[in-house]
Amino acid sequence: MTSRRTFLKSAGLLTAAAALFDPAKIFARNGMGFSGAGVRSLSGKGEKKIVLEWCPYEAKMKHVFTISHSSRTSTPIVLTRITYDGYTGYGEAAMPPYLGETTNSAIEFLKKAKPELERFNDPFMIGDIMQDMDELTTHNCAAKASVDIALHDLVGKMIGQPWWKIWGFDPAHCPNNSFTVGLDTREVVLQKAKEASIYKVIKVKLGRTEEQDKMMINTIREVCNNTICVDANQGWKDKHYALDMINWLNTKNVNMIEQPMPVEMLEDIGWVTENSPLPIIADESCQRLTDVRKLHGYFTGINIKLMKCTGLHEAREMISLAEALGMKLMVGCMTETSVAISAASQIAPKTTWSDLDGNWLIANDCFTGSQVVDGRIVPSNDPGIGAKMNKGLNLQFVGA
Amino acid sequence: MTSRRTFLKSAGLLTAAAALFDPAKIFARNGMGFSGAGVRSLSGKGEKKIVLEWCPYEAKMKHVFTISHSSRTSTPIVLTRITYDGYTGYGEAAMPPYLGETTNSAIEFLKKAKPELERFNDPFMIGDIMQDMDELTTHNCAAKASVDIALHDLVGKMIGQPWWKIWGFDPAHCPNNSFTVGLDTREVVLQKAKEASIYKVIKVKLGRTEEQDKMMINTIREVCNNTICVDANQGWKDKHYALDMINWLNTKNVNMIEQPMPVEMLEDIGWVTENSPLPIIADESCQRLTDVRKLHGYFTGINIKLMKCTGLHEAREMISLAEALGMKLMVGCMTETSVAISAASQIAPKTTWSDLDGNWLIANDCFTGSQVVDGRIVPSNDPGIGAKMNKGLNLQFVGA
Repeated sequence: MTSRRTFLKSAGLLTAAAALFDPAKIFARNGMGFSGAGVRSLSGKGEKKIVLEWCPYEAKMKHVFTISHSSRTSTPIVLTRITYDGYTGYGEAAMPPYLGETTNSAIEFLKKAKPELERFNDPFMIGDIMQDMDELTTHNCAAKASVDIALHDLVGKMIGQPWWKIWGFDPAHCPNNSFTVGLDTREVVLQKAKEASIYKVIKVKLGRTEEQDKMMINTIREVCNNTICVDANQGWKDKHYALDMINWLNTKNVNMIEQPMPVEMLEDIGWVTENSPLPIIADESCQRLTDVRKLHGYFTGINIKLMKCTGLHEAREMISLAEALGMKLMVGCMTETSVAISAASQIAPKTTWSDLDGNWLIANDCFTGSQVVDGRIVPSNDPGIGAKMNKGLNLQFVGA
Repeated sequence: MTSRRTFLKSAGLLTAAAALFDPAKIFARNGMGFSGAGVRSLSGKGEKKIVLEWCPYEAKMKHVFTISHSSRTSTPIVLTRITYDGYTGYGEAAMPPYLGETTNSAIEFLKKAKPELERFNDPFMIGDIMQDMDELTTHNCAAKASVDIALHDLVGKMIGQPWWKIWGFDPAHCPNNSFTVGLDTREVVLQKAKEASIYKVIKVKLGRTEEQDKMMINTIREVCNNTICVDANQGWKDKHYALDMINWLNTKNVNMIEQPMPVEMLEDIGWVTENSPLPIIADESCQRLTDVRKLHGYFTGINIKLMKCTGLHEAREMISLAEALGMKLMVGCMTETSVAISAASQIAPKTTWSDLDGNWLIANDCFTGSQVVDGRIVPSNDPGIGAKMNKGLNLQFVGA
């Protein structure tokens, strides 16, 4: 602990430039070691010691879910619980396989994180804690997010406010939330489009052949004229083809394109953005805070997902940076329970597009939190992330 | 209200680039009008209506204060008070004459601000409120800060926490605070240096002739070897001369140089920064959030002053942006009472240099708040900005 901070301090000015390219260092500062200075007595009644525990969970999907490079019927989840002073905060790591995390790797991380986290004597120091979490491993972003979300839930409950309110965000600014229709056959798309037509915005996964992509859109248009957000999931490989598709989509009441081309084709994406009539949003290209600057000038905006960026603390910084750079914001999700969805909904008021439907896609959501009301996701007025565990569950949280 | 927001909305994507150069637009978004959605019932007992009042105050200086282009014996202040639901928040506009604001111009602004502010039904919506304040006039940054500080004080009190804690900043990270020695004769400097030697860091105002500047430093070095921060206040007009001075200062236990050259000589400043052994910090060059990006690559860091940047809301955004750009942070002040100093101290944990001595320089401070303990400024554990009005005062706050 001390040695890492001492290192950061002695590295001093020289690390400033390097910090831009190292997520673990971006919050680093001329620290003097952490302390719990000024912990104000709160109304809690338990032990003033941070305790982290976790519980693996399998999110079962209502339908087989297909994007351009995979299909699946369930998503591994690890729920977390942090207690302090009689308060309890819940967090979640959702791990769709293509992110490279598993239940085991998340639990391995949480075992490493536990002593590091529990050494802090004030859960309010989320920035310092998350910096330490980041120094433990290079990856494990979803597992880190599970710690971050539980801390936010805990601290919000301690101060009796939801985070949207602490941050001064107005839920009235939340955009319409989108409902996702995955890649599928004409028959299935037709059925799903009918189900989705009650939502104001439909998100469509494209990125296969021209014929298949156009079939998807045309089929939905047989059923409804709702606004469509398109996610190409890196599926288009040629910039001229991508732009032609976007121009065609622009005639079909589509209002944005997410990740039209592969991450490594950034220059081509920049050309598409420059010539596109629709905003182009980074998803796979934007993982963390350090990516945002690199994408400025190449994308119109970024899609923030808590499981990619390690949680709400870094998400809040990404919002500030993107706004200062004049970039648009979207908030997205994985297949997640209402824990992570409710956490993500706290930042929805700052976004132009919200795509928080992960909890609708699963059959066994174990929490209740943010709700979609009149098409828009509305974070709860309850403190913290505003999610409550459903009654009658017997989730076993363990700390070893 | 509605018309401005409707305009912002319809301007849409086209405003993204322009927003970078217009402070009033940087927080603009695809808004749908403000609302008080989700106001959670708090423990207050008064009327749930925001009320803004103000009180002019003359801060009398202990000593005549000289910087490179002026001297003065007092500073006009306007204190503000915002009440809501039985809670009271205090704010302050401090107006050294060179900023172009006066007691009258601040009160004129507050008269315009009052109906706009009081139309909001939730004081937590500080971002939306400050965006509206910014749309009222182009300047009046100190007057805007007086609204921002009072809102932060109010909201912090409503949720029972100081802002450093809400933001997750650890006061143990606060750097040593500097005590300022102004431009003066050898005799006066000798006397002031003796007084200042009890502080760990002395800030020295330079920017006159080489002989005068070197006299200042040499005279202080006769008395003590405390770390010195140098503020040239734009006083050096030639980049080679500036670099020579900085190299000489580097041999005298100086650890930073603030604003070595005039604002308009940005390219020359960039050359100085590139060649300087000491960090170069923007003061006059950095007024608001929109300046930060323009200074990246030209300065090592920025000096954030609440009276320049319209208060804590924008200061918090400047911190996020500067950190993301790898720029160092300093927090400074005007001649201010403990209201504005206590507010500024909330962000001191994020800085490398804190220069919050404005309240020590005045003889009639009317509040008590953040204290300097063992050389470092320590924000109070009290909620809000942590400043309390001194007993026995009869300040008359009015709303017209």
